[in-house]
Amino acid sequence: MAIAYELLGAPTGNCQRVAVALEEAEIPYKATFVDLWSGRHRTREHLRLNPAGKVPVLIERDDAGNTRVISQSNAILLHVARKGAVPLLPNPNEHSHAIALERFMYFVTDVIGPNYAGHVLNAWQQPRQASLFQQMSLEAFELAEFYLADSPYLAGEHYSLADICAATVIAPSAGEVDWERLGNLKTWFDRVTARPGFVRGMQAFRRGA
Amino acid sequence: MAIAYELLGAPTGNCQRVAVALEEAEIPYKATFVDLWSGRHRTREHLRLNPAGKVPVLIERDDAGNTRVISQSNAILLHVARKGAVPLLPNPNEHSHAIALERFMYFVTDVIGPNYAGHVLNAWQQPRQASLFQQMSLEAFELAEFYLADSPYLAGEHYSLADICAATVIAPSAGEVDWERLGNLKTWFDRVTARPGFVRGMQAFRRGA
Ligand SMILES: N[C@@H](CCC(=O)N[C@@H](CS)C(=O)NCC(=O)O)C(=O)O
Ligand SMILES: N[C@@H](CCC(=O)N[C@@H](CS)C(=O)NCC(=O)O)C(=O)O
Repeated sequence: MAIAYELLGAPTGNCQRVAVALEEAEIPYKATFVDLWSGRHRTREHLRLNPAGKVPVLIERDDAGNTRVISQSNAILLHVARKGAVPLLPNPNEHSHAIALERFMYFVTDVIGPNYAGHVLNAWQQPRQASLFQQMSLEAFELAEFYLADSPYLAGEHYSLADICAATVIAPSAGEVDWERLGNLKTWFDRVTARPGFVRGMQAFRRGA
Repeated sequence: MAIAYELLGAPTGNCQRVAVALEEAEIPYKATFVDLWSGRHRTREHLRLNPAGKVPVLIERDDAGNTRVISQSNAILLHVARKGAVPLLPNPNEHSHAIALERFMYFVTDVIGPNYAGHVLNAWQQPRQASLFQQMSLEAFELAEFYLADSPYLAGEHYSLADICAATVIAPSAGEVDWERLGNLKTWFDRVTARPGFVRGMQAFRRGA
């Protein structure tokens, strides 16, 4: 059965990460811009799709008229990882599958987590505490340098969710990274961010706006 | 092929969550206490297993003498969800699978995330900012109340990773929750925390110590 995918989002990291995953999985989708600045995510219509009042939200519609809705960027990533023409996770029987999950969750909790805390603290006008969290997240990149010592991608031979998550989250901090010291990370980052699907995904909600 | 599981950990939320999952999946495992207070996680031996110098770490040994290592609590959860006698995620072809991932990731990012930020801020002696994050995490429980309006578990009819993640993370804050107002959550919390596997997992590293 054919499924039509629609991604509701805005040009933020959580939404771009999902758009990149859909692009890289070669899943055709419609990107629909939700204007957070005018409060579109607080409307009754949006809250029916996601009671948390947030984006991204993925809507799947099949031929029979069934609609399925899923929110949470990282859950959508895990969900679409096996739906496209190009899988974004190794076969679950391979150890590289567990490793891809490990590296993916490392970026979700140990990099996106502190970044988000920094973002909230800035909104609370606590710039000193915010910058401490931003520093934590930058320091977390050092483990990625180590992961890339013997392999082209974060989880080994294959491009995976871990690379998508890591590169989308490093991109906005690229100006602050000590690339001299993190040479493996630099080579990997340039390779990943040059991928056409990566570039298209990062711009999905700029185009869609 | 038979696999022997060993979980390295300490009596902390990240480790208890994994121990509960192993118990609930009915996967026999050995819980090995890593004394963080004496710095055992910074030894060369531990860093060889996990260069991040953290717990939990899951070690799998098969009959043929192969050893596989995985870290990151939430990656281990996703990894073991399908390995045991009792699956901790619905069949991937069911929509409830996507919903379980959604609710699981909600707790990981929107509850454990702020909790961790609060923990770090307390360590930095910033109790005022810490308590704001702890408040954020308590407020996030309200969406769980909503999820439980029509179903016994967070992702519907079946107990899943989402329930394990949510209940282990709510447990230490149970004294601060406004249970009067969150009646569905209360019923669910009492049911889940009374499960024998849940109780055993929460105590894994107390026993192991
Ligand atoms: N953990 C969620 C977070 C979603 C989230 O915070 N989305 C932001 C945009 S990136 C949002 O919708 N903010 C609007 C608001 O909070 O009012 C995810 O990963 O999807
Ligand atoms: N995101 C990681 C975090 C692991 C973590 O922070 N573990 C703590 C104990 S709960 C630890 O090992 N701390 C020792 C240290 O940081 O020195 C996970 O979910 O496993």
